[in-house]
Amino acid sequence: MTYRIAVLPGDGIGAEIVPQAIRVLEAIGAKYGLSFTFTEGLIGGIAIDKTGQPLPAETLELCRNSDAILLGAIGGPKWDDLPTHLRPEVGALLPLRKELGLYANIRPCHTYDALADASTLKKEVLAGTDMVIIRELTGGLYFGSKGREDIDGVQKAWDTMLYSTPEIERIVRLAFETAGHRRKKLCSVDKANVLESSRLWRETVNRLAPEYPDIAVTHMYVDNAAMQFIRNPGQFDVVVTENTFGDILSDQASMLSASLGMLASASLGGHVGLYEPAHGSAPDIAGQKKANPIATILSAAMMLEYSFNRVAEARAIEAAIEAVLAKGFRTGDIMEAGKTLVNTEEMTDRVLEELA
Amino acid sequence: MTYRIAVLPGDGIGAEIVPQAIRVLEAIGAKYGLSFTFTEGLIGGIAIDKTGQPLPAETLELCRNSDAILLGAIGGPKWDDLPTHLRPEVGALLPLRKELGLYANIRPCHTYDALADASTLKKEVLAGTDMVIIRELTGGLYFGSKGREDIDGVQKAWDTMLYSTPEIERIVRLAFETAGHRRKKLCSVDKANVLESSRLWRETVNRLAPEYPDIAVTHMYVDNAAMQFIRNPGQFDVVVTENTFGDILSDQASMLSASLGMLASASLGGHVGLYEPAHGSAPDIAGQKKANPIATILSAAMMLEYSFNRVAEARAIEAAIEAVLAKGFRTGDIMEAGKTLVNTEEMTDRVLEELA
Ligand SMILES: [Mg+2]
Ligand SMILES: [Mg+2]
Repeated sequence: MTYRIAVLPGDGIGAEIVPQAIRVLEAIGAKYGLSFTFTEGLIGGIAIDKTGQPLPAETLELCRNSDAILLGAIGGPKWDDLPTHLRPEVGALLPLRKELGLYANIRPCHTYDALADASTLKKEVLAGTDMVIIRELTGGLYFGSKGREDIDGVQKAWDTMLYSTPEIERIVRLAFETAGHRRKKLCSVDKANVLESSRLWRETVNRLAPEYPDIAVTHMYVDNAAMQFIRNPGQFDVVVTENTFGDILSDQASMLSASLGMLASASLGGHVGLYEPAHGSAPDIAGQKKANPIATILSAAMMLEYSFNRVAEARAIEAAIEAVLAKGFRTGDIMEAGKTLVNTEEMTDRVLEELA
Repeated sequence: MTYRIAVLPGDGIGAEIVPQAIRVLEAIGAKYGLSFTFTEGLIGGIAIDKTGQPLPAETLELCRNSDAILLGAIGGPKWDDLPTHLRPEVGALLPLRKELGLYANIRPCHTYDALADASTLKKEVLAGTDMVIIRELTGGLYFGSKGREDIDGVQKAWDTMLYSTPEIERIVRLAFETAGHRRKKLCSVDKANVLESSRLWRETVNRLAPEYPDIAVTHMYVDNAAMQFIRNPGQFDVVVTENTFGDILSDQASMLSASLGMLASASLGGHVGLYEPAHGSAPDIAGQKKANPIATILSAAMMLEYSFNRVAEARAIEAAIEAVLAKGFRTGDIMEAGKTLVNTEEMTDRVLEELA
């Protein structure tokens, strides 16, 4: 089986970290008998510089004809003053998600024993934290109708949180299925005590639940979830929620980890999934071999799991990273006294050694 | 000067903690030459039991004719099965806020050195945390038009986040003024990169800022704020935000404290402010003298500061509590090995000793 991967390094450290994930995928391929083709495309600021467009038509075409997409990071100060629709994030990421029908953002939050001291939360609070946040990505408040009205000098502005049953159903099903590969617990987060859209969300979860009898379903209000993420994050397995709540909670949950350099993400929905680190292009350290490649390598592991159903291969990568951290190797973002500082490539070398 | 206080103990531990705050107010009055009249009214479950109504007309009238309201807590399992409009929270608190025009909820979040070990965050992360969250309470997503439509078997449900300039202006002014009594930093939290209502919010903040030249204003996106509250809470002084974001962030911030039993709150806006602990009626420990009275005593201190502009008196109460904690006195909710367990009244006795 050959998997066709569209490779979009993008800007800043993207060009340094994406090749590291490719090295790991190639090693996994050799070990488990998978083969990959990697085809590079332009996206973001570098695409603007070379073609005038943040998302060139050829890149979109490449993505459509691939089995999965590996993205680095996009944007940087060089392109911040462009008109909004040309800016890398708005001009590339949003249309890419839209064109590919990527309605679900998946953010694992797994804490590593070896890094537990690096979080602002206490080690014993973090122990055993291993959750996946599934955020609806194309509906709700950010995409509903919005506007402004001026009545006798009084401005009114509004946004609409709108969801339809099919929009809720597809992401909730994805969440049930994800929980099925994991610890079989699903927590749906809403504000059903006050929001009508949340009541429809909760009814939909409850209507689908009998189809997944092995999954234990709970509901939690979003304000309580924001407390529980800090109080006892180990209680969660899979969390599913709408767009705005997921935006807030997934960024909050990122602090349970030692560094943004550890956080992978996937955007799913259509026939091709997009995998990228949760961090940005970090122009301040670009070109210095300082970037932590782990988030991108873990994103490649998610690709194996979510797009190719290669769960054992994904677990092997995760275990290799766990081992490298336990042996004390650290990039600058997670460096502590007494550990061994390594650069981007050296960190990957260590991961490959574990996989060998 | 005599201040007329409406006293609404409510349900559960409310009847135990409210008298403690009154004792402290009386001591402050004797020391600083203020006098108070305290008039009790019924609210919540106990009001349902005695009058059939969670917010009797006499209680509302009492509140209207007072200078401030001291509330305990309302609700409990006994009244949970009543129809929604009769339930203590929906039937009493929402109409009370509405009738009194209380559009701003104020939640201080101050961490005590003596209790820093009790939070799930590391002591060094919490050091120096002393912020006030000002949440808009009567607009936004929870109160905008909402509904549901069934088109060919597809349900759609929506809620509207709506704000007008005057609604934003009044709460933002309150936030600027609050920052003026404090460390003179105001952080306005929104999602102006995607929401039109947030753009109007941010424009309004920026338009008013020149009127408060001594206040340093910053803007932060809500997802980033949820990260920063855990990453470095000491960076905040006054935070102002709309209803839903404030609901999530203030509950999240409550985890920075050692216990809900430490958290005061105020609801302001009209001519009479409402002061109450952030915790509930705790029916499980009611009547056992176990409740922590500090949140209610701190709410009385907020009353002195926000309703009566008696800032020195408020600071004296806060300092007394700090001293009592430093001496090792603890109610059950904040008890640790090596400290002295005290009951509700004994904790207040210690505070009064410090004030003497
Ligand atoms: Mg975000
Ligand atoms: Mg809340």
